Amino acid sequence: MRALLRYLSTMDFGQSPPQIGQEMHRIIRSVLNDPDPYRNIKRQFNQLLLEHYAELKKWVDHADDPFQMALRLVIAGNVIDFGPNQPFDIRQTLERARTIMLAIDDSEALRRAISQSHLLLYLGDNAGEIVMDRIFLETIGHRNVYFAVRGAPILNDALLDDAKMVGIDNIAHVITNGDDAPGTILDNTSPEFRRIFDEADLIISKGQGNYEGLCCVHKNIFFLLMTKCDLVADHLGVKKGEFVVKQG
Amino acid sequence: MRALLRYLSTMDFGQSPPQIGQEMHRIIRSVLNDPDPYRNIKRQFNQLLLEHYAELKKWVDHADDPFQMALRLVIAGNVIDFGPNQPFDIRQTLERARTIMLAIDDSEALRRAISQSHLLLYLGDNAGEIVMDRIFLETIGHRNVYFAVRGAPILNDALLDDAKMVGIDNIAHVITNGDDAPGTILDNTSPEFRRIFDEADLIISKGQGNYEGLCCVHKNIFFLLMTKCDLVADHLGVKKGEFVVKQG
Repeated sequence: MRALLRYLSTMDFGQSPPQIGQEMHRIIRSVLNDPDPYRNIKRQFNQLLLEHYAELKKWVDHADDPFQMALRLVIAGNVIDFGPNQPFDIRQTLERARTIMLAIDDSEALRRAISQSHLLLYLGDNAGEIVMDRIFLETIGHRNVYFAVRGAPILNDALLDDAKMVGIDNIAHVITNGDDAPGTILDNTSPEFRRIFDEADLIISKGQGNYEGLCCVHKNIFFLLMTKCDLVADHLGVKKGEFVVKQG
Repeated sequence: MRALLRYLSTMDFGQSPPQIGQEMHRIIRSVLNDPDPYRNIKRQFNQLLLEHYAELKKWVDHADDPFQMALRLVIAGNVIDFGPNQPFDIRQTLERARTIMLAIDDSEALRRAISQSHLLLYLGDNAGEIVMDRIFLETIGHRNVYFAVRGAPILNDALLDDAKMVGIDNIAHVITNGDDAPGTILDNTSPEFRRIFDEADLIISKGQGNYEGLCCVHKNIFFLLMTKCDLVADHLGVKKGEFVVKQG
């Protein structure tokens, strides 16, 4: 706490939330002398959601519109986040997702964009949640998907191991962004990541952290997220806890 | 923010919340170069609740048990607090108070203690709320009440001016505790306050701040409060936002 508060007292208040979170969690890992304090939580949530996989696939397969159902589930999965200081209930959120209205609904534009895209870059967010990312990718059936995870441990964000554990590597080229921010700060990402980012004709960005880093980038990009704080909700013109599919 | 975070990074984590709040608000007042940043809010809420006075008196007068009604209203008034970072709705809280169950209910013991007491010391909490303190004191009709306010500006806590503005001085001896903590830290209070505190055969303590400072003092004391954080709620074995009448 003292190390974090000392950093916060001197930090540049103009930084984006992922930049602040990145530095805070570097301090936490250093003080704890643990390179990945969320390791067990990540495994546990991958496991838990894998146990839901068959049931969620049924929900999608039996839906009137499998794309819309998978889209809602993949946003519901975004609730699995140990960054915001608030409890969450996965089962309840998944049930809620089945009938929820999107607070911002660019989903039909997203459906068209996917059908027209040749290289889709999908930016993952949290462990556990990536089981739903897999279901969504299986549902859209795109032939050339790159799935990006963080380059090093940060919070409960998904890494290469998580993508492999839930089988994303069977349906997408898994890459890392080369950075340990809880979001995508383009300037800090690896040259390999930026090459794919530049080549992609469609980007799907999961979660608030990726939105905070990329909301002003000029690309064909869609943000899928659940709002988790009043600030980002206000910025989007919606309420906290709502489901958003927003074309950038 | 920087000054506060710097203080928090070096503070003694063993202090009680009122001690930490006291130092934080000394810093805030110093940085703002304003001896009483909550001045207008305090006046505004005294005025607002005075406008409710006649109606609330009617609720009490027409209640089956005026003591129990006044007790609920005086706890509802405790919602007027600019310390916790959460919005509140006075009107809604007052309406809710009319029928609410107390999460801890030592109210009948309090009623007996009041009838047996010769010197009652009542520790006030926030401006605005003291209109309900007045209604409660008018309802119990005790002949020898000392009403204590803070000794200097701290948050929206009531001061001498507030007690006079709402007419508490007509029904009680108004004294200050000589300190600017958002609660009662006995060691820091004035000798005059401690003399009354020692002489009183019954103490009624309003709010979390006074509870945090006095919960372990051996006196004939009753705490009236609404729980405003999980920590204090857990300590009391109730939930956040509940009404408590607890014999110390």
